[in-house]
Amino acid sequence: MHQCSVFGLLLLFVGCVCQYQPTWESIDSRPIPAWFDQAKFGIFIHWGVFSVPSYGSEWFWWYWQGQKYSSYVKFMEKNYPPGFTYADFAPHLTAELFDPNEWVDLFAASGAKYIVLTTKHHEGFTMWGSKYSWNWNAVAVGPKRDLVDEIASALRKRTDLHLGLYHSLFEWFNPLFRADADNQFKTNVFPTTKSLPELYELINKFKPELLWSDGDGDAPDSYWNSTGFLAWLYNESPVRDSVVTNDRWGYGSICNHGGYFTCTDRYNPGHLLKRKWENCLSIDQRSWGFRREAKLSDYLSTEQLIAALVETVSCGGNLLLNVGPTHDGRIVPIFEERLRQMGQWLQVNGEAIYNSSAWRVQNDTATPGVWYTWNKERNAVYAFFLSWPADGFIVALLGVSQLLSWASVSPTGLKVQLPTLIPGQMPGGWTLLLTGVQ
Amino acid sequence: MHQCSVFGLLLLFVGCVCQYQPTWESIDSRPIPAWFDQAKFGIFIHWGVFSVPSYGSEWFWWYWQGQKYSSYVKFMEKNYPPGFTYADFAPHLTAELFDPNEWVDLFAASGAKYIVLTTKHHEGFTMWGSKYSWNWNAVAVGPKRDLVDEIASALRKRTDLHLGLYHSLFEWFNPLFRADADNQFKTNVFPTTKSLPELYELINKFKPELLWSDGDGDAPDSYWNSTGFLAWLYNESPVRDSVVTNDRWGYGSICNHGGYFTCTDRYNPGHLLKRKWENCLSIDQRSWGFRREAKLSDYLSTEQLIAALVETVSCGGNLLLNVGPTHDGRIVPIFEERLRQMGQWLQVNGEAIYNSSAWRVQNDTATPGVWYTWNKERNAVYAFFLSWPADGFIVALLGVSQLLSWASVSPTGLKVQLPTLIPGQMPGGWTLLLTGVQ
Amino acid sequence: MHQCSVFGLLLLFVGCVCQYQPTWESIDSRPIPAWFDQAKFGIFIHWGVFSVPSYGSEWFWWYWQGQKYSSYVKFMEKNYPPGFTYADFAPHLTAELFDPNEWVDLFAASGAKYIVLTTKHHEGFTMWGSKYSWNWNAVAVGPKRDLVDEIASALRKRTDLHLGLYHSLFEWFNPLFRADADNQFKTNVFPTTKSLPELYELINKFKPELLWSDGDGDAPDSYWNSTGFLAWLYNESPVRDSVVTNDRWGYGSICNHGGYFTCTDRYNPGHLLKRKWENCLSIDQRSWGFRREAKLSDYLSTEQLIAALVETVSCGGNLLLNVGPTHDGRIVPIFEERLRQMGQWLQVNGEAIYNSSAWRVQNDTATPGVWYTWNKERNAVYAFFLSWPADGFIVALLGVSQLLSWASVSPTGLKVQLPTLIPGQMPGGWTLLLTGVQ
Amino acid sequence: MHQCSVFGLLLLFVGCVCQYQPTWESIDSRPIPAWFDQAKFGIFIHWGVFSVPSYGSEWFWWYWQGQKYSSYVKFMEKNYPPGFTYADFAPHLTAELFDPNEWVDLFAASGAKYIVLTTKHHEGFTMWGSKYSWNWNAVAVGPKRDLVDEIASALRKRTDLHLGLYHSLFEWFNPLFRADADNQFKTNVFPTTKSLPELYELINKFKPELLWSDGDGDAPDSYWNSTGFLAWLYNESPVRDSVVTNDRWGYGSICNHGGYFTCTDRYNPGHLLKRKWENCLSIDQRSWGFRREAKLSDYLSTEQLIAALVETVSCGGNLLLNVGPTHDGRIVPIFEERLRQMGQWLQVNGEAIYNSSAWRVQNDTATPGVWYTWNKERNAVYAFFLSWPADGFIVALLGVSQLLSWASVSPTGLKVQLPTLIPGQMPGGWTLLLTGVQ
Repeated sequence: MHQCSVFGLLLLFVGCVCQYQPTWESIDSRPIPAWFDQAKFGIFIHWGVFSVPSYGSEWFWWYWQGQKYSSYVKFMEKNYPPGFTYADFAPHLTAELFDPNEWVDLFAASGAKYIVLTTKHHEGFTMWGSKYSWNWNAVAVGPKRDLVDEIASALRKRTDLHLGLYHSLFEWFNPLFRADADNQFKTNVFPTTKSLPELYELINKFKPELLWSDGDGDAPDSYWNSTGFLAWLYNESPVRDSVVTNDRWGYGSICNHGGYFTCTDRYNPGHLLKRKWENCLSIDQRSWGFRREAKLSDYLSTEQLIAALVETVSCGGNLLLNVGPTHDGRIVPIFEERLRQMGQWLQVNGEAIYNSSAWRVQNDTATPGVWYTWNKERNAVYAFFLSWPADGFIVALLGVSQLLSWASVSPTGLKVQLPTLIPGQMPGGWTLLLTGVQ
Repeated sequence: MHQCSVFGLLLLFVGCVCQYQPTWESIDSRPIPAWFDQAKFGIFIHWGVFSVPSYGSEWFWWYWQGQKYSSYVKFMEKNYPPGFTYADFAPHLTAELFDPNEWVDLFAASGAKYIVLTTKHHEGFTMWGSKYSWNWNAVAVGPKRDLVDEIASALRKRTDLHLGLYHSLFEWFNPLFRADADNQFKTNVFPTTKSLPELYELINKFKPELLWSDGDGDAPDSYWNSTGFLAWLYNESPVRDSVVTNDRWGYGSICNHGGYFTCTDRYNPGHLLKRKWENCLSIDQRSWGFRREAKLSDYLSTEQLIAALVETVSCGGNLLLNVGPTHDGRIVPIFEERLRQMGQWLQVNGEAIYNSSAWRVQNDTATPGVWYTWNKERNAVYAFFLSWPADGFIVALLGVSQLLSWASVSPTGLKVQLPTLIPGQMPGGWTLLLTGVQ
Repeated sequence: MHQCSVFGLLLLFVGCVCQYQPTWESIDSRPIPAWFDQAKFGIFIHWGVFSVPSYGSEWFWWYWQGQKYSSYVKFMEKNYPPGFTYADFAPHLTAELFDPNEWVDLFAASGAKYIVLTTKHHEGFTMWGSKYSWNWNAVAVGPKRDLVDEIASALRKRTDLHLGLYHSLFEWFNPLFRADADNQFKTNVFPTTKSLPELYELINKFKPELLWSDGDGDAPDSYWNSTGFLAWLYNESPVRDSVVTNDRWGYGSICNHGGYFTCTDRYNPGHLLKRKWENCLSIDQRSWGFRREAKLSDYLSTEQLIAALVETVSCGGNLLLNVGPTHDGRIVPIFEERLRQMGQWLQVNGEAIYNSSAWRVQNDTATPGVWYTWNKERNAVYAFFLSWPADGFIVALLGVSQLLSWASVSPTGLKVQLPTLIPGQMPGGWTLLLTGVQ
Repeated sequence: MHQCSVFGLLLLFVGCVCQYQPTWESIDSRPIPAWFDQAKFGIFIHWGVFSVPSYGSEWFWWYWQGQKYSSYVKFMEKNYPPGFTYADFAPHLTAELFDPNEWVDLFAASGAKYIVLTTKHHEGFTMWGSKYSWNWNAVAVGPKRDLVDEIASALRKRTDLHLGLYHSLFEWFNPLFRADADNQFKTNVFPTTKSLPELYELINKFKPELLWSDGDGDAPDSYWNSTGFLAWLYNESPVRDSVVTNDRWGYGSICNHGGYFTCTDRYNPGHLLKRKWENCLSIDQRSWGFRREAKLSDYLSTEQLIAALVETVSCGGNLLLNVGPTHDGRIVPIFEERLRQMGQWLQVNGEAIYNSSAWRVQNDTATPGVWYTWNKERNAVYAFFLSWPADGFIVALLGVSQLLSWASVSPTGLKVQLPTLIPGQMPGGWTLLLTGVQ
């Protein structure tokens, strides 16, 4: 429980001693800062040493040397000298074409309201110059730049995007973590000397408004001291008022404790949840990190992405759409195209997305592919239809300034005549505004 | 003049001793093999050592060390050790993800009927294992594969694509060429020992049906012995019956002599020419080789590419659409998307493109964006309209199986009611078939 | 004070609870295990990432980026791409020609009785697979071999060489060390999480008989917890009985506390000390690590090395003679030649070196270049003369089996007739055995 | 026959039209310029792309990919990525520590009077910026410096060293050579376009006084047009008066035709020859190019080198002593030591070497290891004895200014009392001057 929730208002007058306790009961009681629910759409960025081989998956290291999957083993045998290690990739994370302002402009043009950057994935390589990851960070090796700092700084120049940082608790091959694991997590050298100091460093240095935790390595939250850290984050950190976190804080916490729920990758339940949630989805259906060998058919089309956004938002979730930059710091044109088309669509239909709430029904049982959101203030309902029907629907197609004709359909439906559209005008997904709904 | 054109018919009966002479008059008299005009659409592939820096242009070497453009000089200073040479790039042309069958499948899916591959650009690096380019070829350095052979072999497995090879006569920095140039081309060590032996090797080894010559280096055709080579190519080579060539055979020959005309890069005259011609056009508007730094806005959209195809074919030309593969052998998804969408469009509208002829008029003077082709056998005219009109047009929209209503418009026009289309069904560009035209 | 020195004998009977205390008084009271004084001659090996640039000095990193000496800065500018970091050298520590058995054979052939290997220099790179130096160690990066383990294992196969490990406490650029330094060493995150865990790991894993500590970084021994570590080393470690240490354990401890004294690099006082001491001396006069640019004149000649050994041993010291292996794991022939010639000399003259003691006089005041050692058991004195005198000296030139004639010289000298030697027979330095001295 | 030898003197008055014919008879008739016989001692330098792997031999490429010797194949498999080619080594011939003036100073200090540098070995890589070896030369790839020009220029600053250039006619893997070989050398594309243009370029550009030809590839001299080239070299080239050549000009010419004889590698017949000859000998007994894995025992000692020089010169030959520089341009200290010790010995004993002639006897039949040379002008004989005898010999030990006592030994010998030498004064090999010999 929130230690002082009852007396909160009073205590504010005498200096706030109101404190979250390092227990899930207390931590879970904190309301999620409002900006997050209003944002609806964010960009996830998976960038790291895995962007160098950029083959298979961002789990390259594990699949190669942990699982020893033959496609990875063969890829290495064919293309690298004997004895090449994962660490040998790091100098090739060159980022010479990386321009954080260009990235941020693109993210803004996509209509996203926040970003989440992998500051450290399970490989343990920190994309900022962490003092707890000496010679295994982006300032010492590879780019020789503090990539997190550059993106954070570019973001701060504008007001329409919130900064989120992804951080993996565990590291596949860190010998300190593995030693703890061998001790059934009865020792905690790794969190004490590595993951926790890093988390404090990240928060103090970059002041993110979203901390996207991941990778518990099958260790309980007590091993990670997650509630202790979160209590600090919520009580004392420089971002205690605005920061949002997710639910990946130790074995068992996912979909259970922490901030908003992520539950699984590509989580899209199709119905309302009691707690705020997020659907993280990668444009490349097979990988979060950039894969050179990806084919066009591996990428979700803009139509599919719009559908995912509509479904997610209708059910009260946020969509966190992932792109994987390249080793040299580019977001390749196929991703740019998807993001800009999302932005074009949101330019027209954003009114029905941002700041919207879930309506009393989420999708239409009669007509497949029709989803609803609700504008509380206007008491208006937005109906999205993801495929253009052979014959029509309701009152004001956003982006087409015509009054549509309609007729009521018993008992409570209504039938709208859709306008004739010029082919190719829209990438896909259309929205009707229904006012005066009950 | 064709030495024996007068007696041609007669001589065929006694065994053809009919020979092209090494003169332009004779060379120019050869008819262009029919397959080329019927093909209409080809894929140009610019691949070479320039695909390693993949920065700026395929003219990287020249802009860097010939022109010394500051953006190139700075790019090198920033990213490479002092003294790095262009030759140092070659080992990094790794092609490890190159799959010729995948490429060829994609080209076929695009609706193209021929391809043209850079076997050697002005950099002089041969993409096949030429014995005249020792240690500066793709078998010795970089891929360690005969890239030309692999593509040619993949092509031969199918019947719907013709093989074309691009070859640059001159080489920017070849000291033998430069010595000849210093002698005002009064010596010809370079063509004798390098470019001509290469051309014979290329033809004999790969038997291409199209030889796309380029790069005269401001030297006359007599220096290159172009007519001598072409006489051999047309009279004696293994591809003497089917091979097509272009017009870049020495200073002054372009748009003047040889096979079909290319005239300039991105040539699109907008009217009929007396001779068969080709519009070579790059999807990336600023480069033929792959450029990593290209943005989405640098790429022509599918709508623009369809427009270029329609305009070109209406005026009797072929479109040779260029893609630049990467150093590791990929055709990136943004190119794949363009090519597949071209293929989707041709799947529907190809009837009006392939094997068509130019009509008596090429485009409509009254309605902008309307272009015509003609099917001789059916005496049918195809009308392409590149933007969907606010109100309608003529007799059978290909791909929409409905009879359209129409009315005559005096004196000779006609007005067609277009159907209602479902948005997003087509990438852009629609065709009407008009039968019984006069 | 040694806690229980008075009761030591008694307590041995009841199970030794006799413990060194973590105080200098107690630590200093421990006698140095006898093997060390008997050994006299050891080989020092400076090997690390600095062996990759192998330019200037093993202090390359500091001189380049700490001091920013212009010769180092220019060397990098001239030969490496902009932004190249020291960490980028590590993958090139390839060690592909490293054969630990060959090394050990050579060390034995040199007549050395112990070796001291840099397991981690100030650069912080561990030459073994330390779990406290993730991705900055020789198993993860570069050789992909545990170099310390390989040398230790090769050594264990023979009985004539003792294993010594060099370890630097501080690390120039480790951000954890620097943070502590910024706090005037009032925090001790670095020793707690890095240097001390490493030291325990080294001792437990490799069980060295000599621990050569270095690099206090101007921090006091209390910061390093040196007495605490040494108490464990002497009381509980697996090498508590045999291990020897030196005197570099924190600011002020050198030449003052710990095990034997090293005082300065190349320490050669020319007189007796109260405590056992060691003269560490590099064959390359300007560097301990391999320097590619070293000239012949930079190397000490075998004659000079023999002189240093003689002088050192006469004054009660040990000579620790340094070689710097290359990045690919070789001990270059010029070093091999020096070492083998030392071995040839010791083959003949070793009787006067090993197990000898300092005599009551160390060198002759009358004849320059004459030094003495003493064999207690035989009560014999050895007289070394480093340059062959124009006319002669005393009783049995080792290696020349002739009786020499002599005459007494008043008051206590004696004059010996030297034999006629065949030129070139000996590299330099001759020894006379004088028996029955008083 | 020399076309005009009979009328030579006369013709000099009317302008020399005297010409060597392109026949062996004529070419062989040319006297060898006097400087060569006087020089006696030269330095051979094997440097090239083989200095990059610097493993096994300068024949690395052939042993690896021609003979496929398993040690070479394994070396590559173990240390390089699959598909690595020999050409991939070239960028690593960095020469960043190469200082031609330092080299030349060392060569002069060794007492050598000429050098012979590999300008192109059988690998075909030209160490100068040849325009006939585009992108396979040291200016385009690797050092990015004209190494031949730098050494030639450094040499020209002094007067005590003659420039010699080594050049391989054939190239193991050059496809043009192999095509000619496949035609049993009935075609000659390779010499016409590659080796001969190179030879003219070398001579005209660098004006060497010695041309050391090698590598006939089992092709006859007629294929190489050797006599034609030599006629030009002797008649018209800028070095026609001073240039010296050897005997490796085509199958069968070795030890038979051309300039001086080399006969075999390490040729040391032990008796006089009718023609001037040269003993080329490598300090590393197993390789001419630098081998990283060489051990001290692989190197000839200075004593052995002096013996080879004495024996060679006594029999009328020159000694060409080989060193192999490293990929980064160093002559390693073990070579430097050998060369400087040779220089020390020649400083003392050079009087008996330079400008000497063979005497009527070459070595002593009675005393092994005693060799003679003759000073014509002084009619003095020098007696070298390579090992110091147990008891003595004759009239003035060079370098020891003492008159020696002697006695005649019937019938024609004489016995000399050697002086007492201080050990270590000389590396090995002593010379007596005997005047008034008959």
